[in-house]
Amino acid sequence: MGSIFGTIFRVTTFGESHGPALGCVIDGCPAGLVLSPGDITADMQRRRPGYSPHASKRREADEVEILSGVLDGITTGAPIAMMVRNQDHNPAEYTEIARTFRPGHADYSYFAKYGLLDTGGGRASGRETAARVAAGAVAKKILREFGITVAAHVSSIGRRAEDLEDCIACGDSIGSEVMCKINGLKAGVGAPVFDKLSADLAKAVHSIGGVKGVEFGTGFAAATMRASKNNDAFVADGGGKISKTTNNAGGILGGISDGDEIYFRVAFKPPPSIAMAQQTVNADGKNTQIAIKGRHDPVLAPRACVVVEAMAACVVVDHIFRSLSDRMESVKLAYSLYSQ
Amino acid sequence: MGSIFGTIFRVTTFGESHGPALGCVIDGCPAGLVLSPGDITADMQRRRPGYSPHASKRREADEVEILSGVLDGITTGAPIAMMVRNQDHNPAEYTEIARTFRPGHADYSYFAKYGLLDTGGGRASGRETAARVAAGAVAKKILREFGITVAAHVSSIGRRAEDLEDCIACGDSIGSEVMCKINGLKAGVGAPVFDKLSADLAKAVHSIGGVKGVEFGTGFAAATMRASKNNDAFVADGGGKISKTTNNAGGILGGISDGDEIYFRVAFKPPPSIAMAQQTVNADGKNTQIAIKGRHDPVLAPRACVVVEAMAACVVVDHIFRSLSDRMESVKLAYSLYSQ
Amino acid sequence: MGSIFGTIFRVTTFGESHGPALGCVIDGCPAGLVLSPGDITADMQRRRPGYSPHASKRREADEVEILSGVLDGITTGAPIAMMVRNQDHNPAEYTEIARTFRPGHADYSYFAKYGLLDTGGGRASGRETAARVAAGAVAKKILREFGITVAAHVSSIGRRAEDLEDCIACGDSIGSEVMCKINGLKAGVGAPVFDKLSADLAKAVHSIGGVKGVEFGTGFAAATMRASKNNDAFVADGGGKISKTTNNAGGILGGISDGDEIYFRVAFKPPPSIAMAQQTVNADGKNTQIAIKGRHDPVLAPRACVVVEAMAACVVVDHIFRSLSDRMESVKLAYSLYSQ
Amino acid sequence: MGSIFGTIFRVTTFGESHGPALGCVIDGCPAGLVLSPGDITADMQRRRPGYSPHASKRREADEVEILSGVLDGITTGAPIAMMVRNQDHNPAEYTEIARTFRPGHADYSYFAKYGLLDTGGGRASGRETAARVAAGAVAKKILREFGITVAAHVSSIGRRAEDLEDCIACGDSIGSEVMCKINGLKAGVGAPVFDKLSADLAKAVHSIGGVKGVEFGTGFAAATMRASKNNDAFVADGGGKISKTTNNAGGILGGISDGDEIYFRVAFKPPPSIAMAQQTVNADGKNTQIAIKGRHDPVLAPRACVVVEAMAACVVVDHIFRSLSDRMESVKLAYSLYSQ
Repeated sequence: MGSIFGTIFRVTTFGESHGPALGCVIDGCPAGLVLSPGDITADMQRRRPGYSPHASKRREADEVEILSGVLDGITTGAPIAMMVRNQDHNPAEYTEIARTFRPGHADYSYFAKYGLLDTGGGRASGRETAARVAAGAVAKKILREFGITVAAHVSSIGRRAEDLEDCIACGDSIGSEVMCKINGLKAGVGAPVFDKLSADLAKAVHSIGGVKGVEFGTGFAAATMRASKNNDAFVADGGGKISKTTNNAGGILGGISDGDEIYFRVAFKPPPSIAMAQQTVNADGKNTQIAIKGRHDPVLAPRACVVVEAMAACVVVDHIFRSLSDRMESVKLAYSLYSQ
Repeated sequence: MGSIFGTIFRVTTFGESHGPALGCVIDGCPAGLVLSPGDITADMQRRRPGYSPHASKRREADEVEILSGVLDGITTGAPIAMMVRNQDHNPAEYTEIARTFRPGHADYSYFAKYGLLDTGGGRASGRETAARVAAGAVAKKILREFGITVAAHVSSIGRRAEDLEDCIACGDSIGSEVMCKINGLKAGVGAPVFDKLSADLAKAVHSIGGVKGVEFGTGFAAATMRASKNNDAFVADGGGKISKTTNNAGGILGGISDGDEIYFRVAFKPPPSIAMAQQTVNADGKNTQIAIKGRHDPVLAPRACVVVEAMAACVVVDHIFRSLSDRMESVKLAYSLYSQ
Repeated sequence: MGSIFGTIFRVTTFGESHGPALGCVIDGCPAGLVLSPGDITADMQRRRPGYSPHASKRREADEVEILSGVLDGITTGAPIAMMVRNQDHNPAEYTEIARTFRPGHADYSYFAKYGLLDTGGGRASGRETAARVAAGAVAKKILREFGITVAAHVSSIGRRAEDLEDCIACGDSIGSEVMCKINGLKAGVGAPVFDKLSADLAKAVHSIGGVKGVEFGTGFAAATMRASKNNDAFVADGGGKISKTTNNAGGILGGISDGDEIYFRVAFKPPPSIAMAQQTVNADGKNTQIAIKGRHDPVLAPRACVVVEAMAACVVVDHIFRSLSDRMESVKLAYSLYSQ
Repeated sequence: MGSIFGTIFRVTTFGESHGPALGCVIDGCPAGLVLSPGDITADMQRRRPGYSPHASKRREADEVEILSGVLDGITTGAPIAMMVRNQDHNPAEYTEIARTFRPGHADYSYFAKYGLLDTGGGRASGRETAARVAAGAVAKKILREFGITVAAHVSSIGRRAEDLEDCIACGDSIGSEVMCKINGLKAGVGAPVFDKLSADLAKAVHSIGGVKGVEFGTGFAAATMRASKNNDAFVADGGGKISKTTNNAGGILGGISDGDEIYFRVAFKPPPSIAMAQQTVNADGKNTQIAIKGRHDPVLAPRACVVVEAMAACVVVDHIFRSLSDRMESVKLAYSLYSQ
């Protein structure tokens, strides 16, 4: 359960590493968007293992096949299904550790939930994010039509620059942070109560594996600040444009975009698969040790940036679509397009 | 839009400070729960202005009337509507500032969204949280039947103890933090992809006004840690019980509860209504100044604790209900209760 | 569960006859609609017992109080809660039959579901439709802004005119039919797969108590027709307008409006509360007899017309709102309204 | 939009005839169900063109590939994606008529909605039902575990037996009816207000192309009956079993199953693609004629039976899953399965 995201622009993902394929279906993409596999490829490359110098060495072709919803390079309004075949996966590699609960992984909680072992190849696999990235590429293509960009970058890795190399050397891994910025979104998108734009972004980002915290604007620092410092003054330029002199709010006020840059910071834990020996328990309930061999990322942020962008873009598109009926006048305008 | 929360246990809130009443409707509460107004009252008291020594001086009776869904003190399975009449509200007080965008408030983004001014009494008002607290009290009553508790406390106010008094003295306000702990939840509740338990908790908490950040377990600190420190080792006690030797994960692994205490920290910004003069713009687009008089909280955490609990409880109840069909065997067991 | 209807324009209803009040909350009504209690009253009158010459003699004031979402006679975009206090209800009247399963009623299936007796005053009560009518009045007000009307009338009662009088005389009741017509909706509203406009209308209407069948256009007669007769030819007037020479389709093709009048026929069963003695079982599992005294409608269609209209109007509004993001160009047009 | 069905057991379909593949994703299937491609194949065969003697001659292999959610023949709780590759499709055949609005088809309403032509191969194609059948086969496998069966048969074709042969001879087509029966469902499944079991079944069935009417139990005949005839008496057998002496209700009372057989009748229009010449309009707005050549079903019911079953099965599974939290005691029982 819980593999569908969104209200109007809805993304369903499917697939495990150990199965034949993974992918997504987008329901609610408007007709008339120019879309080609090339629009997806660039983002898929950024997520790929091996793309970053520090990434896992596993090779994945990640060639996306568009199965539906696009005709002659234009979206038709029908669901867009996209699929990536799994290649180069090595079930045996997982099987050897399949009966042992890896610390920091979902093996144990999965087992508690579903009553079966699904180690390494299940839905908690980082591989699932490929489907999100494909969906996010479509969302970003839509946003570009409105002059809206979503861009994330690695804002920190560990405490010091040399932490990462040190971790790689000793078979450990390190935590990291991503900063994500959304530019060009007009003021007025979001919702005031449960479905605040910030709340939906927080959910979207927390749904990515390894995320431990999200903060908007001044974030946790705001917990130590005074309003006289943290409040952003409004200023009018005399020509009808209202802006804020600072952006401590992070571009969202009361759950609704304020026209400023939206920015938020995301904390990723150190990826839990490490070569060092760890104390754990196996599926028979016996105490044991585990050392996880094979190809594993020593840090999450570099490959996660494009996943954060994908999730953020899906949220913004969905909120724009939901906002179209905010006012009687916007409904009238959009409805007037129907021919008769 | 966006005033309905949850999938099976669904809460709708309504009402503004300036209107006759506010309240909520809970759809999806099971039949057979003992419930009386007294179950609601205690939590309502904790949210009430005037309850905390630092809280706004506004008096609200906050007497909850249960309009439906309860018969002879037992829930019937029908929607539970609860209503609080607004008393002692002073529209004039808001009207005088109604045409000026208060810094740090949703006035401007609201205006951009809906094209109208709704200052001070709209859905962004802290008063809306009364409806959440009423719904949360029902959710907590359900959880108690399963031995699950949700408890939040103020973990910090500003940087130092005397920050608050200082702020009050100079008409400023101060940021704060809340720590929330969920105990007694079994392992296996949540979902592995979009609807991770952590993701839904993050959304729930970020939907509360003034929240700028949420972190689970080691949170942002994890971004600087190594897996060899951050991973929690599993250990078996020989009697069938598996636990973790530490709880850096915060009780959730891969979006699913691991049987440990769930804990998360919430950052609240300093409440933006302050008596000090601030630069801003009015609805006519003219630059102006504003000093917000009247009764306003100098800090959010003390009254927000019960709101955080309410939202967290609603999420946990909803996830337990959604988890009942995780396995064929649990479906069979529950379905076997039907008589013929 | 199941008391929330719609995707964007979402209606939650609550309340039982035996409780203090019933009502609804509309989430997703656009800001800027002129709305007053008077807009609701007219439809409430049409649903009222005693309004039709054949209706139950129970007196209900049905005065709707708007609790939220409207300021100075204009909707604000916030949830619109409306409430009707229950007056003149006589719990004792129901109590005497509360432990006996009335044939044709939901008493027994309710008991099987919730494990408790809720006879006569539960959610299955016809009284619940008052909340739907209030919500429907708002939906119809919105539709009027687009020149769309929804109008239902009684198309038949029993087999012959004198059936009704005869039934009243002998303490029996009679079945009936309602015809509902939607005019002024442009072509292009609906969806091609699961959420066909016809499918959502069918659900909406089947959710009304007593409905046993719904058919669109030629309906069941189409099951005996040939396509050469049933297909509607298209014709162009040369000035850009395309229409159908007949309307056997009932205004919907492939789940999407075709610009023609939408019409559907609804079958209501004879209301099951009758004074004649009936064989049944009580809550102790004993065979017994029941004769239902008191005020009960001998036919459903006259009072149900306004309920059918209400449900149909909610569906059409919801589908129009959902259709606003059908095409990139309509999204762009509506989004362009945001000021900056 | 509108390509996702269900609340807990959620089915997303995708794909067009003209594209590379079509399929579905099921989110919310419990872990622990034995499932193999063979479970799907039998139903796919029943839907296949060429299966019925009267069906279209188009050959489709309809070999379903399970892409995810099943490991070693057991469902894992993860989304189950299933795909069918399109073979033997002839885009040219459609292209020649692509610019002409076929009477009785969705071509025109599609064009009005999406602003583009998608004739013959779009989402309105009967081919889309292959994805529904695959999902329905999983739903029926689940129901079998509870002793519940869903079975539909052709109840009538036209007015007389020889109507069909006559239609085939003259290039016309004929309407038909399907009767669907659900057996073995306990009393108590469904919901009392909007999400009545009958309402959700009605929506599900009306979402199938060509359906013009649905009726439960005595259906439209009830509109001419008296309650003294239409009401079903309850009777107790003395051993704790309560049943109805007749089943005019069709197994659902007040939206909730009553333990009896659920049955409903479905009216299908004559399939609109006929070889006879018809008056219509093309995409340039010019009046023209069309005669639709090629392989087309002369009647819908024979191949539609399995589609009706599929949709009904999905509804029943979803309602059972949603009903698990109806009572505190069933929640407690199911939750007790979690180990610690």
